[in-house]
Amino acid sequence: MSSPLPGVQALLFDVFGTVVDWHGSVTKELERVGKQHSIEGDWKEFATTWQRGYDENTLRIAQGGKGPSSVDVMHREMLEDILTSEKWKALSDKLTSQARDELNLVWHRLDGWPDSTPGLYNLKKEVIIATLSNGNVRLLVDMAKHADLPWDTIFSAELFESFKPNPKVYLGAVKHLSLEPHNCALVAAHVDDLRAAAGVGMRTIYIPRPGEDVGVGEVKPKAEGGDVDVVVHSFEELVKLLAGN
Amino acid sequence: MSSPLPGVQALLFDVFGTVVDWHGSVTKELERVGKQHSIEGDWKEFATTWQRGYDENTLRIAQGGKGPSSVDVMHREMLEDILTSEKWKALSDKLTSQARDELNLVWHRLDGWPDSTPGLYNLKKEVIIATLSNGNVRLLVDMAKHADLPWDTIFSAELFESFKPNPKVYLGAVKHLSLEPHNCALVAAHVDDLRAAAGVGMRTIYIPRPGEDVGVGEVKPKAEGGDVDVVVHSFEELVKLLAGN
Repeated sequence: MSSPLPGVQALLFDVFGTVVDWHGSVTKELERVGKQHSIEGDWKEFATTWQRGYDENTLRIAQGGKGPSSVDVMHREMLEDILTSEKWKALSDKLTSQARDELNLVWHRLDGWPDSTPGLYNLKKEVIIATLSNGNVRLLVDMAKHADLPWDTIFSAELFESFKPNPKVYLGAVKHLSLEPHNCALVAAHVDDLRAAAGVGMRTIYIPRPGEDVGVGEVKPKAEGGDVDVVVHSFEELVKLLAGN
Repeated sequence: MSSPLPGVQALLFDVFGTVVDWHGSVTKELERVGKQHSIEGDWKEFATTWQRGYDENTLRIAQGGKGPSSVDVMHREMLEDILTSEKWKALSDKLTSQARDELNLVWHRLDGWPDSTPGLYNLKKEVIIATLSNGNVRLLVDMAKHADLPWDTIFSAELFESFKPNPKVYLGAVKHLSLEPHNCALVAAHVDDLRAAAGVGMRTIYIPRPGEDVGVGEVKPKAEGGDVDVVVHSFEELVKLLAGN
């Protein structure tokens, strides 16, 4: 059987949602803070609103709009916005500026999906593994230490002064790896991210994750009439595919 | 006893000579290639000439001169220069273009000093550890895999479109770590590199290595009237110093 990923020497990973469970980790932290101040609320919805703001802002800036180039700054601004709503007044009254700064850093402490750490250790033996995330460098460094993610290096959109899905982010990482786009594959739980990577000539690996790409429907590989190169359901499955390279 | 490195949260490492033994590794590879073609020569001198060309070119470009931004390209051009000399004609006649490309990649496969790998694994538990090297990203990624150097991330001068000792290289890494310069220390076997780091406000850690900083004389810490913050003789000694932070 021929390899479905011929010539791939490097895997670039989307991180939020693909490698780490942002929704579960942020919800858990908000629950903890709520309990500390004896406040109840729909923490899942708070987390979703926070993340949606990030999605909307990074996309707008990727398309040429203005805004902060660091996701840390962006998350902090959005936290402030959410806390000004009447719905979260009780929590807002309790949180000092320092407590808000600390809460904002939850995005540096997201937990990996169960297969992420063992899968990455095995993938690292086969190919170069690196992040390709809109998260800022420091956020990704802290997260790697927290969740034991053994990246060979960290590529952040911040290094290329834009955000995904702007093509220069994908091409910047490929260039610094001294590879051609077709020798690199993006691994993501988001089909839009993969379409942008394919647009610059990269290979694409889709991995469905709980709560990600809601409403997108089933994503299929090209061999079954879809538009990604490969669909896997865990990083361990990807290890087996690449062992044939 | 107070810490000699108060508030240091990240160590940035010079790599060639400081973490890896370029002279020994390159000489060994040249000896191997020589033996393959039954050619004898002063391989140590060949290695020294190759490295001196790199030193001179990176310094010139750091100061505003023109030249390749990738060390891979620079090393390859210098290899060509060396092989045009009458002295190395016998070797030059034997090496195809492909063999020269392969030999050039020896700079991706340098061996660590004996304390480097265990020291870095221990330092990584205390602080952020990253490269800050004139080597290009791909070279540093390959070297980390070859010599088992567990960097949290890789900063290359290539990302900042200059070379050390240009201040923007040091400041670029500090910025992406979301730290102030005084929270970062450069670790190097070259006092000139450390002086440039001190010039932007970073802390400085000198580690003498065999064959490096020849002719510089003894480098002393400030406490003894010298101009670096700390002098250590192994990465393990540095682990002990930082454990007090």
